[in-house]
Amino acid sequence: MGQIAIGADNFLYPMPMVLVGANVGGKPNFLAVAFFSAIQMKPPVLAVSLEKVRYTNDGIKENKTFSVNIPSAELMEATDYCGIKSGNSVDKSGVFEIFYGKLETAPMIKTCPICMECRLIEVVDVLTDNIVFVGEVAETYMDDQYLTGGIPDLIKTNPFLFSVRDKKYVGIGRIIGGAWEAGKNYK
Amino acid sequence: MGQIAIGADNFLYPMPMVLVGANVGGKPNFLAVAFFSAIQMKPPVLAVSLEKVRYTNDGIKENKTFSVNIPSAELMEATDYCGIKSGNSVDKSGVFEIFYGKLETAPMIKTCPICMECRLIEVVDVLTDNIVFVGEVAETYMDDQYLTGGIPDLIKTNPFLFSVRDKKYVGIGRIIGGAWEAGKNYK
Repeated sequence: MGQIAIGADNFLYPMPMVLVGANVGGKPNFLAVAFFSAIQMKPPVLAVSLEKVRYTNDGIKENKTFSVNIPSAELMEATDYCGIKSGNSVDKSGVFEIFYGKLETAPMIKTCPICMECRLIEVVDVLTDNIVFVGEVAETYMDDQYLTGGIPDLIKTNPFLFSVRDKKYVGIGRIIGGAWEAGKNYK
Repeated sequence: MGQIAIGADNFLYPMPMVLVGANVGGKPNFLAVAFFSAIQMKPPVLAVSLEKVRYTNDGIKENKTFSVNIPSAELMEATDYCGIKSGNSVDKSGVFEIFYGKLETAPMIKTCPICMECRLIEVVDVLTDNIVFVGEVAETYMDDQYLTGGIPDLIKTNPFLFSVRDKKYVGIGRIIGGAWEAGKNYK
């Protein structure tokens, strides 16, 4: 019993799954990604970490735009497919019905509850295997069927998570408490 | 119906909650954080984005170390408390029973199922409100009660997530599929 060292490793999980979109050679391409995070609220900035070998990277660098699309659990198979198959070997432009927003070069997925188009503002290239793209969200898109009272409804959007250790996708559970609320009376 | 623009905003959710630990002025301090991500697997590297006003930042810069601790849902109140209260105004050194690892200056939480001690390798300071600390995981610690067959068991660790829009904490749900598996036969 008690804490034991199990070796230096990343156990940040479960992470929500997203699809990162970019035009590569003029064609929309999507990659399944779990290494990403919001990093600032106002203005809204996020970051995605992609392996340097990824086909998507060239498109992001070329257009200076990319998209982050949050799929619901119903899109699990298509999302996983976009993680297994590289744009180098298969044309993924037909996997989803797409649309473009104000940035014009960041392809987004019509059937994803939430889509964010991003303007590339920084590239952090300090690691051996991965490169981090930092983007400012230029616009966010939702299908109004996923809104409740004008804000995204977590239960309706039904996102899913990736658990890296057991290689599983996991659904979200029930609400267990209020943020900035649950700890108010903690002594 | 159909995708509508709802304004530029970050809707990356739900994000898992972690507690970022650092010694500040020689005392352990913990901050609740949802803006973080693994960014590389080997060597294991992660990043946390903290508001520039955070008390924790000075400690990370001073010691060049920090920890990332994943609380289970049972620690929701204590975690939320560490998000509400700043180390500037309250001494959080007694909230958790702590331990130190090989880096010696990154305090970790005994009751968290997973603790990672990190060596600061990069500071990304390109945003207005937030600063990003990139750390290489020097060692990972777990209580063996959370391991199944030597690997972290998601159900036993019972992490929880933060949904920023509705300000709720959300539990994890059931396993819905296999990663690098679910999309194998996608046509």
